[in-house]
Amino acid sequence: MYHRTELQEAFNRFLKAQQLIKNPSQLYEPVEYALDSGGKRIRPVLLLMAYQLYHEDIDNAMSPALGLEMFHNYTLLHDDIMDKSAMRRGHPTVHSKWNDNVAILSGDVMSILASQYVLKAKKNCQLLLERFNQAAIDVCEGQQYDMDFEQLKTISEDEYIKMISLKTGALLAAALEMGGIVADAPVDDIRKLYDFGMKMGIGFQLQDDWLDCFGDESKLGKIIGEDILSEKKTYLFIKAYELADNAQQNALDHAFKTHDLPADDKIQFVLDVYRQLGLDELIKQKSDAYFDDAAAALKAIQVDEARKEELYKVLNYLKGRSF
Amino acid sequence: MYHRTELQEAFNRFLKAQQLIKNPSQLYEPVEYALDSGGKRIRPVLLLMAYQLYHEDIDNAMSPALGLEMFHNYTLLHDDIMDKSAMRRGHPTVHSKWNDNVAILSGDVMSILASQYVLKAKKNCQLLLERFNQAAIDVCEGQQYDMDFEQLKTISEDEYIKMISLKTGALLAAALEMGGIVADAPVDDIRKLYDFGMKMGIGFQLQDDWLDCFGDESKLGKIIGEDILSEKKTYLFIKAYELADNAQQNALDHAFKTHDLPADDKIQFVLDVYRQLGLDELIKQKSDAYFDDAAAALKAIQVDEARKEELYKVLNYLKGRSF
Repeated sequence: MYHRTELQEAFNRFLKAQQLIKNPSQLYEPVEYALDSGGKRIRPVLLLMAYQLYHEDIDNAMSPALGLEMFHNYTLLHDDIMDKSAMRRGHPTVHSKWNDNVAILSGDVMSILASQYVLKAKKNCQLLLERFNQAAIDVCEGQQYDMDFEQLKTISEDEYIKMISLKTGALLAAALEMGGIVADAPVDDIRKLYDFGMKMGIGFQLQDDWLDCFGDESKLGKIIGEDILSEKKTYLFIKAYELADNAQQNALDHAFKTHDLPADDKIQFVLDVYRQLGLDELIKQKSDAYFDDAAAALKAIQVDEARKEELYKVLNYLKGRSF
Repeated sequence: MYHRTELQEAFNRFLKAQQLIKNPSQLYEPVEYALDSGGKRIRPVLLLMAYQLYHEDIDNAMSPALGLEMFHNYTLLHDDIMDKSAMRRGHPTVHSKWNDNVAILSGDVMSILASQYVLKAKKNCQLLLERFNQAAIDVCEGQQYDMDFEQLKTISEDEYIKMISLKTGALLAAALEMGGIVADAPVDDIRKLYDFGMKMGIGFQLQDDWLDCFGDESKLGKIIGEDILSEKKTYLFIKAYELADNAQQNALDHAFKTHDLPADDKIQFVLDVYRQLGLDELIKQKSDAYFDDAAAALKAIQVDEARKEELYKVLNYLKGRSF
């Protein structure tokens, strides 16, 4: 059984051994660049962890793990064009380092390469690719809902949870599920692995919303309140409008709709209302409840608890993160 | 055995029966719009024709045929963003009807849906998807070479043929090859089907270059000389610079580099040089040679000549087209 960091390193070695740059180099250089720029490799590591619940020979699961990471980085690449983001993980994004056309086309080829790597799995590759494709479709739908929400005055809590299930949960769930499929795990286990990943993903996203408002700026490496400044419809935004009394609603409207308000004031006005409504506690409870559901799904998998240790650790690591 | 128009109609019925529009509708409406806008369905029809060399039950090949057509239309959708094209087949392109972000994301989901449809094939679906993915990668590489060529002063004939093999040939070749794979055809036949499609595709593209300069404007539905105006590095452009004497080279330079030359003059100057050099004949010969190679590949397939009738007809139809 390998630890998280060992799996991460093994994955990075496998990635480095690939000959990603071919001709035309203009097409493939951004592919390597996008994959090189780091990140915690959380999806491939989860796939490998699910696999090693059943087998030790993780080399057999490396190709689909890379397919998944390739797909994830491709969605970031295209998202960055759509959001006009100039930087990611401290480096210029592909479209700002090269241009939009390069970013579109290199992203397109990454999507196909992702599918090719998934197909190289030694076992059950038709089912594996079907499930991978379904997750990929889910991510696109989630991204579309997220963009749709920008145009709406309010959305319901259910709609929000559905959006993050698709945009964030689906690919984490697929990581676990795909690990189970490559390992030829029992169907019931595969379903629970998916459920574990989905619940963990929703908890993770809710915690992200919490961190953006109540996190520790120095550990987070970014300023508090970015979601407020960009008027993103997060869980906190939605619940605030749902629970606010008239005075609080006016305060929110004032903060969100007055365009010449200094950024710091805007953030403080909104955070005050969030705190008055106890949303810092409420979202933590909600997020923890999803993490607990994830733990329950993991517990129900028909494998020795000892073998699940690394997955429990990841869950606790994500739950306790302050970055 | 079905005729070309029967296969086209059967394919359109199959397409119409799909529930393409789901929620979020903003994501899926452009998918249906892009597929609805017509075209000759040449790739799915070729796939079905290759299949019916071996079997009559073409329904079994409809899903991969749709996957291929979905992929082709997705590449057009993203190409139109990159080329900033406002119209296609007489309708506004997706990015001009909606916007760039919609076109990027709907294209992305089409790429995955394409893979899902290919996966629904009843037979040999791993090999089928591997070959489909390879063709998809080829198309991306071809598009990148085409964009790279814009920045270069000259390219060689070999480089040009390689580019159109990737950009145009690969997907036509894959159509034939995939039909053979779904039909469980002998490996040798599958290779020849691919070869037939590739040679036909190269001939088709060379003929396109010819039509743009020497075609019949009224049948073509577009003006003569668009490639000249956009200074596209076609086969004619390349051979002209290769074969021109000093005076002709100066005439070409004058036409291509004088920015205030009226469009009609520019076209006439260049066409004069092309004609002096006999390029109208040369490119026709070259294109016909590829069509002949395609016919030879088709002849070598180990199936009764009578069964190949529809494929010979397509070849002659493409060879003789003036539109």
